[in-house]
Amino acid sequence: MNEVTEDTPSLRSENYALDAQMLERILDALEDESHEGLAELLEPLHAADIADLLEQISPGNRRALLALWPAGIDGDVLSELDEGLREEVIEYLPPEVLAEAVRELDSDDVVDLVEDLEPEQQGAILGALDEADRVAVEQALTYPEYTAGRLMQRELVMAPEHWSVGEVIDHMRATEDLPEQFYHVMLVDPRMHVVGKVALGRIMASPREMPLRQIAEEDFRTIPVTQSQEDVAYAFNQYHLISAPVVNEAGRLVGVITIDDAMAVLSEEAEEDILRLAGVGEESLSDRVLEIARGRFGWLLVNLVTAIIASLVIAQFEATIAQIVALAVLMPIVASMGGNAGTQSLTVAVRALATRDISASNLWRVVRREAVVGLINGVGFAVIMGVVAMLWFGEPMLGLVIGLAMVCTMVAAGVGGIVVPLLLERARVDPALASGPFVTTITDVVGFFAFLGLAAVILL
Amino acid sequence: MNEVTEDTPSLRSENYALDAQMLERILDALEDESHEGLAELLEPLHAADIADLLEQISPGNRRALLALWPAGIDGDVLSELDEGLREEVIEYLPPEVLAEAVRELDSDDVVDLVEDLEPEQQGAILGALDEADRVAVEQALTYPEYTAGRLMQRELVMAPEHWSVGEVIDHMRATEDLPEQFYHVMLVDPRMHVVGKVALGRIMASPREMPLRQIAEEDFRTIPVTQSQEDVAYAFNQYHLISAPVVNEAGRLVGVITIDDAMAVLSEEAEEDILRLAGVGEESLSDRVLEIARGRFGWLLVNLVTAIIASLVIAQFEATIAQIVALAVLMPIVASMGGNAGTQSLTVAVRALATRDISASNLWRVVRREAVVGLINGVGFAVIMGVVAMLWFGEPMLGLVIGLAMVCTMVAAGVGGIVVPLLLERARVDPALASGPFVTTITDVVGFFAFLGLAAVILL
Repeated sequence: MNEVTEDTPSLRSENYALDAQMLERILDALEDESHEGLAELLEPLHAADIADLLEQISPGNRRALLALWPAGIDGDVLSELDEGLREEVIEYLPPEVLAEAVRELDSDDVVDLVEDLEPEQQGAILGALDEADRVAVEQALTYPEYTAGRLMQRELVMAPEHWSVGEVIDHMRATEDLPEQFYHVMLVDPRMHVVGKVALGRIMASPREMPLRQIAEEDFRTIPVTQSQEDVAYAFNQYHLISAPVVNEAGRLVGVITIDDAMAVLSEEAEEDILRLAGVGEESLSDRVLEIARGRFGWLLVNLVTAIIASLVIAQFEATIAQIVALAVLMPIVASMGGNAGTQSLTVAVRALATRDISASNLWRVVRREAVVGLINGVGFAVIMGVVAMLWFGEPMLGLVIGLAMVCTMVAAGVGGIVVPLLLERARVDPALASGPFVTTITDVVGFFAFLGLAAVILL
Repeated sequence: MNEVTEDTPSLRSENYALDAQMLERILDALEDESHEGLAELLEPLHAADIADLLEQISPGNRRALLALWPAGIDGDVLSELDEGLREEVIEYLPPEVLAEAVRELDSDDVVDLVEDLEPEQQGAILGALDEADRVAVEQALTYPEYTAGRLMQRELVMAPEHWSVGEVIDHMRATEDLPEQFYHVMLVDPRMHVVGKVALGRIMASPREMPLRQIAEEDFRTIPVTQSQEDVAYAFNQYHLISAPVVNEAGRLVGVITIDDAMAVLSEEAEEDILRLAGVGEESLSDRVLEIARGRFGWLLVNLVTAIIASLVIAQFEATIAQIVALAVLMPIVASMGGNAGTQSLTVAVRALATRDISASNLWRVVRREAVVGLINGVGFAVIMGVVAMLWFGEPMLGLVIGLAMVCTMVAAGVGGIVVPLLLERARVDPALASGPFVTTITDVVGFFAFLGLAAVILL
């Protein structure tokens, strides 16, 4: 219980970048080994900012901070830490600090905390919990990873469907430990099936005798406990849910998901898509150099194979190139334009799939559209590049060749860019991860083959 | 007021894709011009699903649907529509339907609805509002686009700081039109400065005589009305805010932002980053082909310039290539590997900037890390590609040349991929939009120059 008259102090400057002055004072306190100075600076901060600080300072400073101020690393800070760093920090904390840290957390946060830990560390944390909490967490861990069951909290407020506003308010006042966060009261029937949910604001605005059923929200959706977290985040964003009941296969209420967790998932999933499109797996700034290099190596190796395939096409035309070296100068332009147009098209397709904007009703319109866009821009760049090549090398027919090749390549880029992700989605392969190499191979092969092939036919 | 015993019907199948069977029935009803059939199918649906339906069906079906069922397009559906389509739909609606539609919306939704409309349509909608609502919307429109002022709703519940739980509950019961959604009561002093916020759940769990100040949330942040919506979304996600008070320059409470709006912004901003990284501007699946082609043309034109710059480098080595045609076969491999490694590095940098994971405390570590990752993978691929080239062309020195070129290019890719976005961010140019062409130019130029230059020195 506290009295607040000012905003919570922040580690962040106006646009939420870590504040350089605050950072310097913290590093000074670390250098002076000033426990008090450090605690004074860090204590008022939000757990998320302390976690970011731990992620961004050097490993040496991180160890110094943990040694100087272990009590500051509470459960909230642990929840906010990058998974990679979490194990390192947990290993470093004295067992009693760790036990204290996790006991305050809601069950969903404990699940998030322990699910990726080594069995040994997992056991240590579960052992620190009360019997009831431990059972709840162990139960949640039986649901598959990345599902609603892992995301939900079991702490919730429910009421029999026939209760009135007054009854539920009295019930809440009498309940010892209400969830830290809740926004709806779930109405259940005697079989524990959810039959509606009532927003707290509606309850507070209604007279005590008002039946809860009459002020239940019109839009009402339950989340199956096995639904993927990606789908959960989609539903929250699409239907502006604030909290939603989670039900098991028998339709019984087993938990609640709140929008802040759904927002975190949405942001993670978008992040993952962005990185995967660029051929980067899960990596974070606190990872070690070797891990990062290894993580990126695989994608580059795939790319090497596609590049070699493209080179094999070029090798078919060695004789042509030997006669007209200008072809070697111009051919990367065709491939580069195709590659970029393909990336545009595939990125739009990957996003449309993620946001469920492609359905049976517009599938063919979308494919046709990409082909036409490729054709239009292909013709545009054919003219531009045809003129450039003609002026550069003083050879009108070379302009014609590169122009025709440009059209072929950009149509291939448009069609490949939409069809490849669609096929991958159907084959249940993540299109964000796998589309790039396929599309690049298509545009490279088409580009080099069209350009050098047409050159061999027309120019020789 | 309604009684609910089942989930809201959905247009969507299990994973939230539009349900093909439902779609077919809707299209059948359209074909039969069955007003009743259509209304029966669409009325139970969520506004967001109706909007998606309008976006995904063909333009002809869309017009048929609007003609057959104009009353179904309420304010919520309009809010959910893609901006591009919104003008088209608004133009099509009878004025009285439009007026009815907007009158039900909260002020933030009306602002979102009108801000991108032509002045004429904007006037028609503002004219349909009550005096008070119109003033609120016009006031919001005076704040710059993409700021908290545009995002907030003015409908909120506040209480003098000295009130008790009982007083605020009585006040809410006596208030006619409470906001549709609210999760906190904002505590204000006599100057209308916010001094804290109290979660509804805490209010309901407390006895009537409890002073509100004593149950205010510990973490308390105000949002400046001119803060960018991107920063607002960041704050909600970082600090798990559910609703936050917005204050003007004088520190007075002017509105509230709720997490569902912040979530929508977060998702839009991530979407924008993904598309910009691929050189696609704002486009939606319902845009016309020509608009889309034009939107993508600009980026491709920039890419054409960078490709021509790379070709100019190759042109310096025409004589070398004429003597050793194998160089023409292998050189795209070097450029392609450099381009991909650069994309990996720049994507990580762009995301780290967006999530504020790069600060003064780790800037140089991050740059150094990218250089070392480039070096490690460069050496790895130098060995692989050196061996491949040697076996392919039976020329050990060619293997050496491509290996050395690979190392140079991949280090350049790593360093360029991190330094370019950082410099662009400092110059206040969106790194997601502009990094790609710069980095590609760097990797292409370094790649071709190193490979062909080394070949000229070593092989000739």
